[in-house]
Amino acid sequence: MCTLVIGAGGQIGRLIIEQLFQKGETPRAMVRRPAPELEALGADTVRGDLEGDFVHAMEGCDRVIFTAGSGAKTGADKTILIDMWGAIKAMDLARQVGIKQFVMISSRGAEDPDNGPAAIKHYSVCKKIADDYLLACGLPYTILRPGRLLNEPATGGFSTHMPADKEAQIITREDVAAACVYCLGNPATLNRIYPLVNGESPLEEALKSAD
Amino acid sequence: MCTLVIGAGGQIGRLIIEQLFQKGETPRAMVRRPAPELEALGADTVRGDLEGDFVHAMEGCDRVIFTAGSGAKTGADKTILIDMWGAIKAMDLARQVGIKQFVMISSRGAEDPDNGPAAIKHYSVCKKIADDYLLACGLPYTILRPGRLLNEPATGGFSTHMPADKEAQIITREDVAAACVYCLGNPATLNRIYPLVNGESPLEEALKSAD
Repeated sequence: MCTLVIGAGGQIGRLIIEQLFQKGETPRAMVRRPAPELEALGADTVRGDLEGDFVHAMEGCDRVIFTAGSGAKTGADKTILIDMWGAIKAMDLARQVGIKQFVMISSRGAEDPDNGPAAIKHYSVCKKIADDYLLACGLPYTILRPGRLLNEPATGGFSTHMPADKEAQIITREDVAAACVYCLGNPATLNRIYPLVNGESPLEEALKSAD
Repeated sequence: MCTLVIGAGGQIGRLIIEQLFQKGETPRAMVRRPAPELEALGADTVRGDLEGDFVHAMEGCDRVIFTAGSGAKTGADKTILIDMWGAIKAMDLARQVGIKQFVMISSRGAEDPDNGPAAIKHYSVCKKIADDYLLACGLPYTILRPGRLLNEPATGGFSTHMPADKEAQIITREDVAAACVYCLGNPATLNRIYPLVNGESPLEEALKSAD
């Protein structure tokens, strides 16, 4: 099996690559800029730009993890072009090449942008539209909707029930990466959407208790 | 019949209101800010905000014209929230209240953002997603995709074949408004998409010759 990680140069992407190696897999890492630190890990790095052509990156792969995002430093035009349009194009290509599982790193608020965090409503809308496209396009999917991301070390504790208190909707990037790697190739997680925050349960139990 | 014009305070919106009056109709004008000039025309103005609740504006209407847009002066976050998300919410409400025709003022490039004008690609993506939602949501629709908009007087000449030369992809706002008003209630224009620029043909002929 070959897994393509789109957005491998991002913070969660790098953690996913590391954890896939720890699991004994050799992922393919799609990056926009040279990523010597991923190459040093032994990853099969492929240059690809979500705003251009990137079908070559997906050919020969069975699974895709989409963890690309334009980030907070660029404008909302890039949220449109990367987080939403880039994701939609990745799904279209994934259908063409027969991808068996498309794992989307989505976000809290994507289920209902009007009632999510107001400051990132435009971002939540773009994530929702990408998620809805994934639900409708026929690809086997797994959608993770983590809370606000932290750079603290992994806690190993999870919950798939988003707390009402927005301040408590937090999770470390390491834990998100671990959940993503766990879902990969796990048939129980196919065609499921998981809200995800740090909590009290082991990962498997937290996923099983999701609505 | 009652027609709701969403975005009636915009440049094309005002022209549509004027032309509907000239045709003997009394449109309802949804505006975000007070619009004394529309009230002076006799329009049934209703305050409504696409970023908030506006179902009250649509109740009792049979047709909707969506010509709202955040414009070039605000950021791409507003393109997401108004042009795309606001449009999607308007369509959802239109389905709820049983609207018989939803006329969308879309844009050139919305059919294929990757090959449209590069500077407005993020805008074209948002317009495409709104258009695709309209195609899929089950509402009877008419979509107009005008070229670059001019404030010159109406020419009365049209073409529905977008010229390859992007500089020639132009049309006056008055002509777009005229096309919109013509399509309203015209069963031949239901479930059709019309590229639209100024050209050599009368409107009816130009629409009939569309692909």
